[in-house]
Amino acid sequence: MTEHTSSAMPVVRLIPKAEARAIRHGFPWVFANELVTDRRTSNLTPGTIAQLEDAARTPMGVVTVNPASKIICRMLDQDPAAVIDQAWFVAKLQRALAHRARLYDAPFYRLVHAEADGLPGVIIDRFGDLAVIQPNAAWADLLIAPLVAALQEVTGVTTVIMNGTGRARTLEGLEEKTEVLVGTAPDAPVQVPMNGAIYMADVMGGQKTGLFFDQRPNHAFAASLSKDARVLDMFSHVGGFGLAALAADAASVLAVDGSAPALELAEQGAAAMGVSDRFITRKGDAFDVLTALADEGETFDVVVCDPPAFAPSKPTLEAGLRAYERIARLAAPLVADGGYLILCSCSHAADLTKFRNASARGIGRGGRRGQIIQTGFAGPDHPLLPHLAESGYLKALTFRL
Amino acid sequence: MTEHTSSAMPVVRLIPKAEARAIRHGFPWVFANELVTDRRTSNLTPGTIAQLEDAARTPMGVVTVNPASKIICRMLDQDPAAVIDQAWFVAKLQRALAHRARLYDAPFYRLVHAEADGLPGVIIDRFGDLAVIQPNAAWADLLIAPLVAALQEVTGVTTVIMNGTGRARTLEGLEEKTEVLVGTAPDAPVQVPMNGAIYMADVMGGQKTGLFFDQRPNHAFAASLSKDARVLDMFSHVGGFGLAALAADAASVLAVDGSAPALELAEQGAAAMGVSDRFITRKGDAFDVLTALADEGETFDVVVCDPPAFAPSKPTLEAGLRAYERIARLAAPLVADGGYLILCSCSHAADLTKFRNASARGIGRGGRRGQIIQTGFAGPDHPLLPHLAESGYLKALTFRL
Repeated sequence: MTEHTSSAMPVVRLIPKAEARAIRHGFPWVFANELVTDRRTSNLTPGTIAQLEDAARTPMGVVTVNPASKIICRMLDQDPAAVIDQAWFVAKLQRALAHRARLYDAPFYRLVHAEADGLPGVIIDRFGDLAVIQPNAAWADLLIAPLVAALQEVTGVTTVIMNGTGRARTLEGLEEKTEVLVGTAPDAPVQVPMNGAIYMADVMGGQKTGLFFDQRPNHAFAASLSKDARVLDMFSHVGGFGLAALAADAASVLAVDGSAPALELAEQGAAAMGVSDRFITRKGDAFDVLTALADEGETFDVVVCDPPAFAPSKPTLEAGLRAYERIARLAAPLVADGGYLILCSCSHAADLTKFRNASARGIGRGGRRGQIIQTGFAGPDHPLLPHLAESGYLKALTFRL
Repeated sequence: MTEHTSSAMPVVRLIPKAEARAIRHGFPWVFANELVTDRRTSNLTPGTIAQLEDAARTPMGVVTVNPASKIICRMLDQDPAAVIDQAWFVAKLQRALAHRARLYDAPFYRLVHAEADGLPGVIIDRFGDLAVIQPNAAWADLLIAPLVAALQEVTGVTTVIMNGTGRARTLEGLEEKTEVLVGTAPDAPVQVPMNGAIYMADVMGGQKTGLFFDQRPNHAFAASLSKDARVLDMFSHVGGFGLAALAADAASVLAVDGSAPALELAEQGAAAMGVSDRFITRKGDAFDVLTALADEGETFDVVVCDPPAFAPSKPTLEAGLRAYERIARLAAPLVADGGYLILCSCSHAADLTKFRNASARGIGRGGRRGQIIQTGFAGPDHPLLPHLAESGYLKALTFRL
């Protein structure tokens, strides 16, 4: 097991103009232009555990350093004497677990949501006795052994999978890899109970960790509108909104996605729930299908559009907002009078106001008017640091047309 | 019954620089500086129904005019031929009712939320067979007869109370009055079921319409954290958060309010629920009580602070934000480690970012750190026009400390 004691740690230091006060008040990052980056610091192995000092050489805490990342330091512990070992991970995980255990009856949730849970860059989703880790920062790759040991100790999970894919690892200069760290990979999709539905999660080959727990409260809200309703679930993935609506007695659900494997999982979920007779899937490009449904004269009582991030970063913002507007424009005419249109964005770069305006504009250009009846975000197993709260990426707007 | 036909209507006209396009796209108001206000227009009786024309004399729809208000016109119907009579009100109310009937099992909700429900300035809360109307715009005072007749026709309510108090009426130059329009005033508080709790609403003498339906989803979320918890409900009013927590098996609730009548109603609610043994009330100034509880060494697993609007208008913003920060600073030390602090604002002037920052600053000054686990707004029976969405007044932030 890797251990780092404070005496052995390298030291990194803020430049005089750095925001030391913000860091003391809980801001979790040091940007590259705030740190003295002499050759010694530049040569540190990505993920090195170090002592952070302010410009006056006062210790500020234990950080992890990645000279290859714009976020050059991430605060691990404001106690300069902290030792980042298995016991340290156990304490963090116990605190994270206590919150989720209070929130949910069944052990299916995001257990660790990175900075806000005190483990910078680390995502852990729990699926009963199985956990999927995304170590999206270099330090967690290096310390994966004590982290996984602590995870087993705290939760009792018997299978741990590392999912090392995605944009965040690229920004950290980390390679992509997915492997089984503990136990054996399941030979079938994992059944996940949520909002009365059953979802099938492909924890080895799926998107992200196999299931999007973040939409749980928005699934629940949409379901509350869906009794006896004809529901259209665009970008359905494994059936997030659609299966929740069926669990809440929707009359019928049409799930549309571009991925055949995702739709196959959605159908397996519907079968496990015994609602296949009310569930139809259609593979295709969302823009094409929306246009085709309009041509076919179809209408629905509830239409949900939960696309992938059209504006993941600032350079893609304008094009992304146009895509959100287009989705709203094409979807609005499919909503029956007095029905509901639920539009989601998981784009970091599109803030709530911009996304709302793009959505309202699209609805108007689709020839409709809408009231906003609900604004939702990611669920409470996705906490945010107040300092980073503006970065809450997920928004779900429910309009009544 | 009052009827207005388009031939008999006066005509008002936008000045050339007015935002005619926004109004055509659904913005519901004309401000006084956008309208030609000759002597004829200035002399219109507040609440007059009129035709609105753009500067080129093209009809834009039927509006109500109040020369005494900054909002000089409110759009009633974009159809210039619309007749604002009982049938018109019936159509608006049926549409509003269909939405609430889908949302809620029991007929206790905000039935009409002003502009977003197509009845500018009009608030109607429903309590079973009883409705409370707040006609906060002059036109609704004038047309109260067909409005109430339509309300009875659509909902079957047998008692209708007009609550004509509050700041909105003052801005419209309307007098304060509360009277029974239909039926007889109830001689006891009305029992309102919500989130498994029972609330006692004083529909004649209470704050606003007697109960705050807007917090329903935030009550529910707080309750979901409250099983076996010791809960402190500051500014409890009739027990909104506290009684919901008891319905969700909170171990104990201490409800604090400055109003003895409100606490009396809260106690009656607890008695009706059979949970009086877990419910304690304490009358006093919130700042004093928070300080006293800290002196007494008390801690709670869940602390809720739902104060009146500290920043109802722009001039009060700075002082209001300081008051929110102070609440957070005094409340944070009372939260047990790993417990929850729920901070609410119903201030129009304090937007989400400002309120969140004030709250986080207060928590920090109270010697604590918090993650944000939930951001909530008013419930879906409080729709918003997209054009006015920034004005969503109610925010509820849940921190884990």
